[in-house]
Amino acid sequence: MPAGKTMEQNTATEPIRCKAAVCKVAGQPLEMEEVEVAPPRAHEVRIRILCTSLCHTDVTFWRMKGFPPRHPSILGHEAAGVVESVGDHVHEVAVGDTVVPVFLAQCGDCPDCLSDRSNICSGLPARPGMPRDGTTRFSFAATGEPIHNFIGVSSFTEYTVVDVAHVVRLEPGVPPEKACLLSCGVSTGIGAAWKVAAVERGSSVAVFGLGAVGLAVAQGCRMRGAKRIIGVDMNPEKRDIGKRLGITDFINPDDIGERTVSEQGWGKTVVLGVSNGVAPISIPSQDILRGRSVVGSLFGGLKPKADIPILAQKYLDKELELDEFVTHEMGFHDINAAFELLTQGKCLRCIIWMDGAKENGSVGVENGRACKAKA
Amino acid sequence: MPAGKTMEQNTATEPIRCKAAVCKVAGQPLEMEEVEVAPPRAHEVRIRILCTSLCHTDVTFWRMKGFPPRHPSILGHEAAGVVESVGDHVHEVAVGDTVVPVFLAQCGDCPDCLSDRSNICSGLPARPGMPRDGTTRFSFAATGEPIHNFIGVSSFTEYTVVDVAHVVRLEPGVPPEKACLLSCGVSTGIGAAWKVAAVERGSSVAVFGLGAVGLAVAQGCRMRGAKRIIGVDMNPEKRDIGKRLGITDFINPDDIGERTVSEQGWGKTVVLGVSNGVAPISIPSQDILRGRSVVGSLFGGLKPKADIPILAQKYLDKELELDEFVTHEMGFHDINAAFELLTQGKCLRCIIWMDGAKENGSVGVENGRACKAKA
Repeated sequence: MPAGKTMEQNTATEPIRCKAAVCKVAGQPLEMEEVEVAPPRAHEVRIRILCTSLCHTDVTFWRMKGFPPRHPSILGHEAAGVVESVGDHVHEVAVGDTVVPVFLAQCGDCPDCLSDRSNICSGLPARPGMPRDGTTRFSFAATGEPIHNFIGVSSFTEYTVVDVAHVVRLEPGVPPEKACLLSCGVSTGIGAAWKVAAVERGSSVAVFGLGAVGLAVAQGCRMRGAKRIIGVDMNPEKRDIGKRLGITDFINPDDIGERTVSEQGWGKTVVLGVSNGVAPISIPSQDILRGRSVVGSLFGGLKPKADIPILAQKYLDKELELDEFVTHEMGFHDINAAFELLTQGKCLRCIIWMDGAKENGSVGVENGRACKAKA
Repeated sequence: MPAGKTMEQNTATEPIRCKAAVCKVAGQPLEMEEVEVAPPRAHEVRIRILCTSLCHTDVTFWRMKGFPPRHPSILGHEAAGVVESVGDHVHEVAVGDTVVPVFLAQCGDCPDCLSDRSNICSGLPARPGMPRDGTTRFSFAATGEPIHNFIGVSSFTEYTVVDVAHVVRLEPGVPPEKACLLSCGVSTGIGAAWKVAAVERGSSVAVFGLGAVGLAVAQGCRMRGAKRIIGVDMNPEKRDIGKRLGITDFINPDDIGERTVSEQGWGKTVVLGVSNGVAPISIPSQDILRGRSVVGSLFGGLKPKADIPILAQKYLDKELELDEFVTHEMGFHDINAAFELLTQGKCLRCIIWMDGAKENGSVGVENGRACKAKA
C-alpha cells in the first residue's frame, strides 16, 4: 500500500488459498486444484462465492478452441457471494455485503453508462484478464503458474476477485441460489422482453429455444402483458416447464414440418446469442425490407447495477418466478456432472454449492455429493 | 356499367390509344409501341402521365431474368400526372387532379394502414397485375396482346391505370418534374431519416451510396438536425453534389483502404435496398450483439397518402431541396438514353417528358429531343 493512503478501504493484503475448478484443456473435464487468489487491487473486490450456476456460455467457451478464453482458466460467471475484502477506492460495497458479479461492467461514467440507449460499458470494455490492467489474480498454489481469468468473473472457485464495476450489491433477502440466476441467464431473458423488445400489452411473441434464457424471455413477456407467447423447441419436455413460465402455445418444429409464415409489415427479432459464437446472422432481404428489424443485445439490454436490484425486488414481491429455473443442485466437486446435464438438455440451471456455503444458512446440500434433481 | 349505378363517378368507358415504351425482353432496349389503355374499373384511376423519372428499381427489374416482371411489360413507377377519368367508387380524386402514383398501396382500412408501425398495406399487398384482380389494362393496339403491369404503376406510357389506393393527390403548385421525385426515390431517402432512423438532433450518420436515394437520406438527416453526415461513395463526383445536399464529410473507400470501426454499444443500420434483389443480408454476430439493430423499410417507412403531401409542402416552403436531384431531362422517345445515363452513374434523376406534357405549362423541353444535362 502506498504511503499516505488510509487503510479504511483496503481490507486485505494477503492472498487466499482455496479450491477452484480449473479448465486446463478446451473441452476436457475441469480439475479441482488448490489455487492462490491475490488480494484485490484498487477498484477490486474479493468475493467468497456461495454458489455458482452453469450457463451455456461457460460451455461454449469451454468447448471453443483457438479463441478466448486462454487456458488454464477458471470459468464460471453466474454466481452469488459475500464480499470478503475490498481494494482501494471501493466505496460501493463493503465486507459482508451480498453481491452478484456480472460479466458486463457498468463503470457509471462513460458515454454508454450515461446513455439510456446502451448497456455496453465503454469505460471498461471486455478484454482478457482483469478489466483495468489485463492481469489475473489467480495462480496455482503449488507452482505459482498464473491461471487466466474469464470474462471478468471466474466463479468456479471458492474465492474470486472482480472489478467493482462488475459487482452488484443486493439487499438481504434473496437466497443466493436465486440471486445467482440474476447475474446472467434469467436477467438476459427478462431484459430482452423488457428493455430490448419492449413488449407491449396484448402483443404476440414467439420464443425460439426454451432453455433458461428462452424461458426467462417467456416470463418477461408475461410480466409485460403479452397476450400470446409461442414457445418453439424441438425438445417435447419443454412444453410443461414452458407453460409454467408463461408460454401460451407450444410448437415443436419436428411435429409440423415446414410452414410458410404469413407476411406482415412489421415485427422485431431480438437476437440474444449466436450459435458457434461467431457465425454471421443471415437475414432474407425480402423479409427485412418489409419494415422488420433485427436487434442484438448483451445481457438483455440491462444495466447491471440499475436493473438487477429491480429484478431482485420483483422476486421478493413474487412478481418474478425464479424457483422453476433451479432444476438441479450439487456440490462443487461434482461440477463436471453439471456440464453433462446442461449439454444433454436435462437441466435449466444447476446450482453448484461451494465448500462452506451452507454456513450461510441457505444451503441444504452437502458439498461433494452427487447431483440431486429437484422434484 | 351495371344497371342501377349512377354515372357520377365513372367518367370513362372507352379505351385510349397512346404511346408506351414496352419492355419485350429483359435487358433489351424498350420499344415505343401504340398501346390500348382500358378504362379504369372500380377503385381505379386513369392518369395522363405528364412526366416520369427513371429509378434504379426500374433498371433492376428490367435486367432481371426469371423473376417478375413478366414481359412484355410497361415499366416505370416514378411519375406525376393528371387524372383523366375514374372508375366506380373513386371519391378521393377527380378528373383534372394532379396526382402521383406510388408502388406502395395505402388502402386505409387494413391493420397495417391503421397502425403507425407499418407502411406495408396488407389490404392490397403487392402482386402481379392490378391489385384487386391481377389483370392488366394494357394491350398492344395492333394485336390486342396483353402487356403486363409493373408494381401497380407502369408509368412509361402516356396513359396508365392505377388503383386509387396507389394514387396520391397533390395540391397545385408543385411542378410535375418535382412531384414525380416524391413518388419513390427521394421520398424513400427522406423517409428513412425521418421515419425509420428517426434521426435525432446532433446525431452522427453515415450514408453508404450517394445515388438519389442516398442523397435524399443525407438531406433528410440535415432536415432532422444531424450534426455529422458522412457520405460514402466510390464515385468521387459525388462529393460536390453530396455537400450541396447536406453531407458534412465525404469518404471514398478507395482512398482510405480497410479501416477498423471503433466499437460502440449502439447504432442503427437502415437497409433501403438489396443488391441483386434477393441476396440475404449477412450481419457479423459480434456486431449485432453489442446492442445494434438492423431495420428494413420500403418507401422509407412513409405512408404515401399521409406523408407525400407533407413533403410536397416542405418543398413549397423551401425546407426540402428537390431541384438538385433533377440532373437531366429528355423527351419520351429518348427513354433508352436515360437507362444508359443511370447505369453509368451519370445522373441522379432524369425527367422524361411525355408527349403533350408541355401543354401543362411547366415544360421547357420538346418531346423527342436528345437528352439535356442541367448546368
